[in-house]
Amino acid sequence: MKATVYRKEHFNAAHRLHNPNWTDEKNKQVFGKCNNPNYHGHNYDLIVKITGEIDEETGYVFDTKILSDLIKENIIEKFDHKNLNLDVEEFKTLNPTAENIARVIWTILKQKIENKYEIKVILYETERNYIEFPNA
Amino acid sequence: MKATVYRKEHFNAAHRLHNPNWTDEKNKQVFGKCNNPNYHGHNYDLIVKITGEIDEETGYVFDTKILSDLIKENIIEKFDHKNLNLDVEEFKTLNPTAENIARVIWTILKQKIENKYEIKVILYETERNYIEFPNA
Amino acid sequence: MKATVYRKEHFNAAHRLHNPNWTDEKNKQVFGKCNNPNYHGHNYDLIVKITGEIDEETGYVFDTKILSDLIKENIIEKFDHKNLNLDVEEFKTLNPTAENIARVIWTILKQKIENKYEIKVILYETERNYIEFPNA
Amino acid sequence: MKATVYRKEHFNAAHRLHNPNWTDEKNKQVFGKCNNPNYHGHNYDLIVKITGEIDEETGYVFDTKILSDLIKENIIEKFDHKNLNLDVEEFKTLNPTAENIARVIWTILKQKIENKYEIKVILYETERNYIEFPNA
Amino acid sequence: MKATVYRKEHFNAAHRLHNPNWTDEKNKQVFGKCNNPNYHGHNYDLIVKITGEIDEETGYVFDTKILSDLIKENIIEKFDHKNLNLDVEEFKTLNPTAENIARVIWTILKQKIENKYEIKVILYETERNYIEFPNA
Amino acid sequence: MKATVYRKEHFNAAHRLHNPNWTDEKNKQVFGKCNNPNYHGHNYDLIVKITGEIDEETGYVFDTKILSDLIKENIIEKFDHKNLNLDVEEFKTLNPTAENIARVIWTILKQKIENKYEIKVILYETERNYIEFPNA
Repeated sequence: MKATVYRKEHFNAAHRLHNPNWTDEKNKQVFGKCNNPNYHGHNYDLIVKITGEIDEETGYVFDTKILSDLIKENIIEKFDHKNLNLDVEEFKTLNPTAENIARVIWTILKQKIENKYEIKVILYETERNYIEFPNA
Repeated sequence: MKATVYRKEHFNAAHRLHNPNWTDEKNKQVFGKCNNPNYHGHNYDLIVKITGEIDEETGYVFDTKILSDLIKENIIEKFDHKNLNLDVEEFKTLNPTAENIARVIWTILKQKIENKYEIKVILYETERNYIEFPNA
Repeated sequence: MKATVYRKEHFNAAHRLHNPNWTDEKNKQVFGKCNNPNYHGHNYDLIVKITGEIDEETGYVFDTKILSDLIKENIIEKFDHKNLNLDVEEFKTLNPTAENIARVIWTILKQKIENKYEIKVILYETERNYIEFPNA
Repeated sequence: MKATVYRKEHFNAAHRLHNPNWTDEKNKQVFGKCNNPNYHGHNYDLIVKITGEIDEETGYVFDTKILSDLIKENIIEKFDHKNLNLDVEEFKTLNPTAENIARVIWTILKQKIENKYEIKVILYETERNYIEFPNA
Repeated sequence: MKATVYRKEHFNAAHRLHNPNWTDEKNKQVFGKCNNPNYHGHNYDLIVKITGEIDEETGYVFDTKILSDLIKENIIEKFDHKNLNLDVEEFKTLNPTAENIARVIWTILKQKIENKYEIKVILYETERNYIEFPNA
Repeated sequence: MKATVYRKEHFNAAHRLHNPNWTDEKNKQVFGKCNNPNYHGHNYDLIVKITGEIDEETGYVFDTKILSDLIKENIIEKFDHKNLNLDVEEFKTLNPTAENIARVIWTILKQKIENKYEIKVILYETERNYIEFPNA
């Protein structure tokens, strides 16, 4: 039987929801206040879930200290205290909705973690709006 | 790959657990303090989960503003600051346990949301007791 | 120098805000949804603060186990899973607003705790509305 | 004896810490990541405390529905989904630290609430950093 | 359709991560501060998930009062205010990582709960590190 | 007018409540489960409050990055993943109740922070038991 390890990290960022193929009017209609041209921001809570066997020698599925360092080096360093649209390569052509941010984080971490582990990403944009990728 | 969107809303209600086919004694034995004839109440936290594809144009699985309005119109309006047993049609003949409240909410929302989305309901009766319907 | 001990307890209750000296119309206007004749309810979080000297022998200002028992016997027993308006003597003639509930709790506890301690009561009606009595 | 009412509201905003009288180097040294030229952002939790007498007729110190509307109209409307530095008049010449944001909010609300009430503002920039103005 | 009931309980315990087959050096390297010979400790939050049919007579999947008592008698009684390594039989030869604690709790509860129910255990070691067993 | 800055940090530790001048019987009677000879433990949340003037140049009362480093160097380094009774000098002759831990933390920080600032310490032993020193 397998177990799932959850590790929670945090970053603060500015963003703006915008589709450059649409008129300003349509952007405002679809994205509302989130389309504000001067950006707004969030305290993002990020939870990474790793599923695997419990190692008999360590008693760990995955060392959370190593997982925390991995998330900090690959995600927090890149996203924290940044403007996602302007400062983060991936969102120069991708709308930084919570769904897309979660998918980008998952794609980055997937390459850093052995394939024998299943990984998922939960991203809180606010306490009331959050995303799981891939789906729960 | 799909993603899951979570949206949290809130309502405050009174209720009483009671099975009219049982004696008062059996009701008290099974439901304990929750059977108090004059009702008691809760701050219910409601989380609705919607699973689907991320739309390429919006970057959304489901717009949380629309989801929030949908929940408010169909659930909060009906349940908030109400006595579930006396004021809510569905519970006139159904015992308002957290399980049944979650199922009723799911049944209502299921009819309002396109079939291509999978939906689930998480209902917190207290911080320590909560329900997921359908099952996790 | 003194220290303050905080102990958090919990009760669930139904209530209704109503002033019997007013017309139904005025009650509805002032108390809105909280005036619902069939009651609604809350998960109340109760925090009791006790300020005093740190005892040299125990290292305690006030033993939180004793404080917890005191709150349970005098408050929780009386308020939990009850209808405040109908089941609790003090609210038969007093409107059970969070302010008045906090004051009633303070008055009860004041008589059970030695005068050398200063006590205050914080009462959360919801996560967003709460009261401190006497004032912060 | 008086009581204190607390009401919690929420806004999401982008900001940047910067002193225009300083060199870029000094700004970076003092404000670190918070000086990022493209801004970053936060989910701000705002708690407004009002201290006064409990009104005998209503059982309220201050109706939290009215307080909530007051905060929404005067603060949330102005700050939510905004860039504090660019979109909010008060911060065009004032560095939007949590301290200054709390002071600005207090100054605005002070003019909207009768003098017989004492008001304070608690502003959470993150779960780990927050401010009370005037001081606790 | 089935539903899942969640019940949250709590215990405080000391522990130390250590593999007796390793040198002190290797233990320190792998387990870091968690290998401190004099132990450290945690407030563990324990959530037990039970999945089953909603009973038509009670409206319950599983009575949370009974579930709470079951957890208290079989887990909390045994783990709370204990040193897991020294005071709890199961960890005399098993490293008390969060993964192993969750698995031990699941194994104990599995024998106490009818087979028709599926059970899972979520164990928070800290707010930032937690485990689900079996896997999510 | 002054403002108060709050900064929250965290440490995990084992401890045991015990008065060496008392018999084992009296220790068990007064401290109950907290007297367990093999220790138990907690996730301690520590909030440091600093009150002072808002500096006109920085907009800060006290830079929370500097405050965080100060707490980490002087408190967290010393207390985290430790056995308070055995590993921390101050508690070799002082009972590590939450009251005494808060007082020891305050005494250490008081010497590191300029006298023009007023400082207080809030220490959560559990979510339900916490201390403010000096008193609120």
